[in-house]
Amino acid sequence: MKKIDLNSDLGESFGAYKMGLDEEVIPFVTSANVACGYHAGDPLVMAKTVKLCKKFNAAVGAHPGFPDLIGFGRRNIDVTPAEAEAYVKYQIGALAAFCKAEGIKLQHVKPHGALYNMAGKDLELSRAVCKGIKEIDPSLILLGLSGSKMIEAAAEIGLPVALEVFADRGYEEDGSLVKRGKPGSMIEDEGEAIRRVIRIVKEGKVAAVTGKDISIRADSVCVHGDGPKAVEFVRKIGAALKENGIQLAPLSEII
Amino acid sequence: MKKIDLNSDLGESFGAYKMGLDEEVIPFVTSANVACGYHAGDPLVMAKTVKLCKKFNAAVGAHPGFPDLIGFGRRNIDVTPAEAEAYVKYQIGALAAFCKAEGIKLQHVKPHGALYNMAGKDLELSRAVCKGIKEIDPSLILLGLSGSKMIEAAAEIGLPVALEVFADRGYEEDGSLVKRGKPGSMIEDEGEAIRRVIRIVKEGKVAAVTGKDISIRADSVCVHGDGPKAVEFVRKIGAALKENGIQLAPLSEII
Amino acid sequence: MKKIDLNSDLGESFGAYKMGLDEEVIPFVTSANVACGYHAGDPLVMAKTVKLCKKFNAAVGAHPGFPDLIGFGRRNIDVTPAEAEAYVKYQIGALAAFCKAEGIKLQHVKPHGALYNMAGKDLELSRAVCKGIKEIDPSLILLGLSGSKMIEAAAEIGLPVALEVFADRGYEEDGSLVKRGKPGSMIEDEGEAIRRVIRIVKEGKVAAVTGKDISIRADSVCVHGDGPKAVEFVRKIGAALKENGIQLAPLSEII
Amino acid sequence: MKKIDLNSDLGESFGAYKMGLDEEVIPFVTSANVACGYHAGDPLVMAKTVKLCKKFNAAVGAHPGFPDLIGFGRRNIDVTPAEAEAYVKYQIGALAAFCKAEGIKLQHVKPHGALYNMAGKDLELSRAVCKGIKEIDPSLILLGLSGSKMIEAAAEIGLPVALEVFADRGYEEDGSLVKRGKPGSMIEDEGEAIRRVIRIVKEGKVAAVTGKDISIRADSVCVHGDGPKAVEFVRKIGAALKENGIQLAPLSEII
Repeated sequence: MKKIDLNSDLGESFGAYKMGLDEEVIPFVTSANVACGYHAGDPLVMAKTVKLCKKFNAAVGAHPGFPDLIGFGRRNIDVTPAEAEAYVKYQIGALAAFCKAEGIKLQHVKPHGALYNMAGKDLELSRAVCKGIKEIDPSLILLGLSGSKMIEAAAEIGLPVALEVFADRGYEEDGSLVKRGKPGSMIEDEGEAIRRVIRIVKEGKVAAVTGKDISIRADSVCVHGDGPKAVEFVRKIGAALKENGIQLAPLSEII
Repeated sequence: MKKIDLNSDLGESFGAYKMGLDEEVIPFVTSANVACGYHAGDPLVMAKTVKLCKKFNAAVGAHPGFPDLIGFGRRNIDVTPAEAEAYVKYQIGALAAFCKAEGIKLQHVKPHGALYNMAGKDLELSRAVCKGIKEIDPSLILLGLSGSKMIEAAAEIGLPVALEVFADRGYEEDGSLVKRGKPGSMIEDEGEAIRRVIRIVKEGKVAAVTGKDISIRADSVCVHGDGPKAVEFVRKIGAALKENGIQLAPLSEII
Repeated sequence: MKKIDLNSDLGESFGAYKMGLDEEVIPFVTSANVACGYHAGDPLVMAKTVKLCKKFNAAVGAHPGFPDLIGFGRRNIDVTPAEAEAYVKYQIGALAAFCKAEGIKLQHVKPHGALYNMAGKDLELSRAVCKGIKEIDPSLILLGLSGSKMIEAAAEIGLPVALEVFADRGYEEDGSLVKRGKPGSMIEDEGEAIRRVIRIVKEGKVAAVTGKDISIRADSVCVHGDGPKAVEFVRKIGAALKENGIQLAPLSEII
Repeated sequence: MKKIDLNSDLGESFGAYKMGLDEEVIPFVTSANVACGYHAGDPLVMAKTVKLCKKFNAAVGAHPGFPDLIGFGRRNIDVTPAEAEAYVKYQIGALAAFCKAEGIKLQHVKPHGALYNMAGKDLELSRAVCKGIKEIDPSLILLGLSGSKMIEAAAEIGLPVALEVFADRGYEEDGSLVKRGKPGSMIEDEGEAIRRVIRIVKEGKVAAVTGKDISIRADSVCVHGDGPKAVEFVRKIGAALKENGIQLAPLSEII
């Protein structure tokens, strides 16, 4: 039976600021990328999010980002590899503490925002991120974009890897995402998005923006929880996958 | 043979800001309280400090504080017990990651500054701190002030405890520290400070500010590394303890 | 004709985090207390909020708080008077820059949250706050709780003062607010809240929680903008005041 | 009589962290670039630094940087022009408040670190910085690198401009600085550094790294205060300039 993981960025509230519909999304995902206090999240939010994940049986991953709360970790910062490695270790360790307190194991690490994008194109930065992860726990799974430098670095270093795809994004023929703003970058139609994901899982193929079919491997589908419509989509895609004989499972059961 | 631990607050540099003579102090202490990025310290500093501790065989402890870098964690903040518990978990986890990366075990936790002082007088806050520590690792040793509420809470909760004394501070008859600013609060003479510590370790006694001898138990002596004179004192007290047949040993060999 | 100001805490969004319905509330208030980047708000939010205030003719005030974003400035921090004075100057100056850029004058200062509460009970802290305000611009109006130490300090120092009342809060016989959690602390019924405010403005009287009428002076009524129901109440109270022959006017036209 | 300004980056301490020998440098410079709390500095430090400047008659300028205390504002951050403009306004306003409190006028603005470098090469970013400055006070002088995009943007927007040179840096034939790390990037010999500055001021010429003389205009010489040797150099260069009939004067007397 085919298996796929559904992952979502969660635990992004901070202090009095609420972001995302975590309570409503967590029951429907199999892996949660939990913010670690740098670009979003705080210790109380992390404690609460990890508890919710445990309750609903969603596997917990760290979602480390740049120390840029005001920019939500979305702005490129010219960090050194040593800084990136140390930031990743710090944040993984902090989140792992809340997992320990709940008696569960941290499953994976997915870098956030600008760190995800920068590392994806920079092998040296990716090596630093992967080294940081491995030195803490070599069984942690790196969740990253297929074809990115992060995947290359993880393979080099010997870190387990999971590949993620985006239900709502178009792909170029080389497997990279169509840049935001370009025609075909977003898949607006929900039904089409769901059909594409099912085909990716079942056949390992997707139609690129040019119309040509390309091969694509997916261990996890990234979904969003930032509004009622997004949450509704998470439910729908989960149900559609099951109806098509695909089992939802956390990364640790796939990799 | 009598044993005593020498502990010092270390790893307090931050970014471009240097604080403390860590390289010079670490070779002479047996336990290091390492700042965890809230009141002081940052991930690169933590990585470097843990490496130095490993190199010189100083045991590593977490030194969690309030999220108040501008106040260096020295200002009382009216946190809830749940906040204190979550802050402590976050910081211990973050530091533990750097220990894991170096293949060493985190030995102890000593709350910093205002958190140390507030918890020392507030049993509910102390319980939250101790609960936070225990849920991460019940073998972590709480290093706290003898007679404080922290020690009471740790006993209640079943956390290993180490008692610290201050070489340069005077004591009231009830074993509490003479308040800063009051006559007798500071022991200015180095020789006297050293003689007092030796007597505390050997006889379990110290002269209170009133002149009356009181009983006092010590597992660790807190020393400072914030200037050349402080560093010189650390060397002297270590040498004097050894000359008096007292062995310097980390907390884990004492508790 | 009787006049009253309606003030609301605004500009509390931060980076990607949205808080409050500023666009909907600003058209209905006469004075806006704008967060200054310490407990809430950021430079882009401040720029946008000041522009909105100018557009809708709401007077702009600074709403300085503690440097405690994670606690939203609601937690007591044991600052020195010198720290409070410097924090207040910094934040007022920062907000005044955005007013200058829009060609409008900063009207008032209302300390936020824990700073408001602590200063209200601590004359020395209030003096520091008032000194900080006066040294920047002695024409700035302090907006504070009637009967509090802030009002006393402002009178001492010679700072213009405006007194605020709360539509949704009960009062003790001495004019202080009934503590949250005690019976009668909140006025739940909207109609009653509005009737109380109208009576305060017209007669200078309100029924204390004991039932006894007390004298009360009001220059401004504090209203909230943190949800659709709150915004609806702002509209209703404004309309009711006008229907009762009371003119809504910013503090600078009242003091 | 020829005039030149000596400027230095000051007020970079933060909380318990001390940086720079401000008390020793301020008496010898004519313009101080004061950190504004984003990359360095805090409200108490700003208050103290402005007081010192007033006492020793050094003109005060704002030294706004990126919100990156952990990186000391030295790391490129991919901010939008709107963010840069708002950050600059916020920080100038905050510092101007401390000037107002001391009854002195803010003289100039010199962007710090990565913001200085990024804006120097990016006209759109420079326009945003200059627009931010001008909207607060069109008489503020922009202090920037000769030949940089900041100077171009200031000319476009109509902001007064002062050009700075570096005593300890080598120049390419096109007037740009020799990149750090390349041979000739640093002028190590103090005597040579001083002779070069005197020639720049008197003749408007300097020998480029290639040996060829180039024309160069200087309104201000940047000096450092981060150690006893640096402070000694500030004294020496000031004395040498005077001995050569050059008057030290703040920017406002030169531009």
